[in-house]
Amino acid sequence: VARTLEFYFDFISPYGYLGSLGIVEVAARHGCKVDWRPTLLGVSVMGVMGLPPLGETPLKGPYMANDFPRCFRLQGVPLKMGGNGSMAPLPAGRAFSWIKAQDRSAAVRFAQRVYRGQWSEGIDMSSVDNLAAAGEALGFDRRELIAALDDPEVKALHRASVDAAIELGVFGVPTFHIDGELFWGHDRLPHVDRWLATGGW
Amino acid sequence: VARTLEFYFDFISPYGYLGSLGIVEVAARHGCKVDWRPTLLGVSVMGVMGLPPLGETPLKGPYMANDFPRCFRLQGVPLKMGGNGSMAPLPAGRAFSWIKAQDRSAAVRFAQRVYRGQWSEGIDMSSVDNLAAAGEALGFDRRELIAALDDPEVKALHRASVDAAIELGVFGVPTFHIDGELFWGHDRLPHVDRWLATGGW
Repeated sequence: VARTLEFYFDFISPYGYLGSLGIVEVAARHGCKVDWRPTLLGVSVMGVMGLPPLGETPLKGPYMANDFPRCFRLQGVPLKMGGNGSMAPLPAGRAFSWIKAQDRSAAVRFAQRVYRGQWSEGIDMSSVDNLAAAGEALGFDRRELIAALDDPEVKALHRASVDAAIELGVFGVPTFHIDGELFWGHDRLPHVDRWLATGGW
Repeated sequence: VARTLEFYFDFISPYGYLGSLGIVEVAARHGCKVDWRPTLLGVSVMGVMGLPPLGETPLKGPYMANDFPRCFRLQGVPLKMGGNGSMAPLPAGRAFSWIKAQDRSAAVRFAQRVYRGQWSEGIDMSSVDNLAAAGEALGFDRRELIAALDDPEVKALHRASVDAAIELGVFGVPTFHIDGELFWGHDRLPHVDRWLATGGW
């Protein structure tokens, strides 16, 4: 039986994007399934932790602005940011939850499109039109997807995912959850790799 | 001519300790010198950034309490905390600055003793007596070291190091500075290694 690793993400984070690329490879190496679960840093970091957004944090904001492009370059991942790098991740998260309820595999492909568009292709994925186009490319109806973004049931479904992530202790992205252990950061992928290989230490 | 990397540390951080162990190996591999420079997270994180101490931050505090022992185990570094893991790093930082002004190499050995004592040997390195013993083992006079901790010149020297670190943009530890680039976190050591090998990317 394949093990399942939970991957917590928020489209707002370029580190989350790097994590989404890396976990595919790491999980495949160990025959591990990945369950993609959305969260929102606006709720965990600003709401629960009471911290300012990372980009606006003195010292750390400027550091991050240099560090994440350096990480992209090191990994050979194109960096071309949609919306000048600022993103409202709520519509994309809700669209993901709506798709996931119908087809988990399509939801992963949708998330990968959103991440790649926002961070590697310069497409503003805060835009409902662009989200609808991403859904359409996967066979989902444009108007249904747009309607879903305001559907109270979809909103509740997405919010329940965010609340469950925070209940588990997830505060930042990417976070990987396996065997009751949380690993936070794309720079913890080597630890996840080792954990999956050895069963822990 | 050997290049010099600046290593910013605070004895309060177990990640700083892991970084202090790792940078020795990475720097040696590239024939790079390391300049050990003290900072204080109490000034950068709490003072300048306006954030609570990491251990008291919701979600992140509990995460860290699990993550750093997991990092120690993975690296085979013994974890036995002085003072139940809480540390007042100011006296140790001042003692370091006092020693560094006399003998840079002895200061590195002192810092390594303090880190190892606090995090691997269960010795409370907030204690002036224990700091004096660490200095004595390196040939420094016990009473002179203790007097230095309250010497306004030593205080100012140490504070100037902290201010210079923050002016450079250092907010957390370990931070590595080379070629104008900051790398924060012991998990960025592979990037430092690559940077030193390639001259950047």
